[in-house]
Amino acid sequence: MTDGLFIAFEGGDGAGKSTQVALLREAFETAGRTVTVTRQPGGTPLGREIRDLVLHGAHVAPRAEALLFAADKAHHVDQLIRPSLEHGEVVLTDRYTDSAVAYQGAGRDLGAQEIHDLNMWAVDGLVPDLTVVVDVSAEEGRRRRGDVHDRLEAEQDTFHEAIRAHYLAMAQGNPERYVIVDGTLSAEAIHAQVVERLRTMGALP
Amino acid sequence: MTDGLFIAFEGGDGAGKSTQVALLREAFETAGRTVTVTRQPGGTPLGREIRDLVLHGAHVAPRAEALLFAADKAHHVDQLIRPSLEHGEVVLTDRYTDSAVAYQGAGRDLGAQEIHDLNMWAVDGLVPDLTVVVDVSAEEGRRRRGDVHDRLEAEQDTFHEAIRAHYLAMAQGNPERYVIVDGTLSAEAIHAQVVERLRTMGALP
Repeated sequence: MTDGLFIAFEGGDGAGKSTQVALLREAFETAGRTVTVTRQPGGTPLGREIRDLVLHGAHVAPRAEALLFAADKAHHVDQLIRPSLEHGEVVLTDRYTDSAVAYQGAGRDLGAQEIHDLNMWAVDGLVPDLTVVVDVSAEEGRRRRGDVHDRLEAEQDTFHEAIRAHYLAMAQGNPERYVIVDGTLSAEAIHAQVVERLRTMGALP
Repeated sequence: MTDGLFIAFEGGDGAGKSTQVALLREAFETAGRTVTVTRQPGGTPLGREIRDLVLHGAHVAPRAEALLFAADKAHHVDQLIRPSLEHGEVVLTDRYTDSAVAYQGAGRDLGAQEIHDLNMWAVDGLVPDLTVVVDVSAEEGRRRRGDVHDRLEAEQDTFHEAIRAHYLAMAQGNPERYVIVDGTLSAEAIHAQVVERLRTMGALP
């Protein structure tokens, strides 16, 4: 049986992650792989209930928010991601634990390292084979997002620049498991860079 | 201003904790203290939504369950317990972090130490001035509970004996912060033991 392959897309809101997920799904399906596409938060029914609690409810204490997002990840990995990988599938996720580190570690009063440790416990150490960071400036991200959708998206540019700095630091600190792509390029140009990297890894023909 | 005082009641379901909480509230109010009575899980509106997700929903992955209960605690401490203590109140809680350690550490496939660490992070290190363990055997607890109310309460006696062993080990390992009372005594006799201990601590006249 083919080995499972786990790829996460990370980056600020409006960076173009979902387009890249769709293009990569097509590439893997063309190569004959079974692909599961999912997202965090909210990749399971329980996860969607948790996400609604956090994003649209009343004030949530910072540690409670971090724990709720971690619970979503724990359930998602246990119920969906790990079983799919064990069946030899390709799993593409729109956001994973790095989003928690970047958003909660950058913008709230909790440290990035403790958020990282909490989330690694939640997912029982499951790290992606490759994380694609789709990088855009906070200003460009805001322009693309257009309207404000929820509380987190309403935060200011400085918050988004702090998030971006966290993503870039994580990627630069572990080049074996990350690729940074310039989100201002065309979707096709970004996709070509992702495919090239996966070919180097032997994951695409 | 009077210092805040934080007391937790722990023990299996049906041990008689809520009766003891009510009696102790009366004793502190008679002594002129302002008392906040609360409970875990579900001591806040958010906590009640979280509790409903865990106890009455579909299967929840073990780590997700632990994280959801920890989120309830984090929010409860941040929004209710710490502010009440900072106002010099007496806070009595029916269950606290030891319940998480005992229930999840004993009955599930997670270790008690990691559940302890997770919950200490959730409550940002807030430990009770005194924890009262109301001790009854699993058989006695089941007899008292009568009907089955939810998924956790439906577990078997062996599970409840494992929980009990965890409570006793925690209490015996830290006698300065715990008192173990025999739950088969009358409510009045148990209450007298709790009051005696609090007098020794200078917390009741």
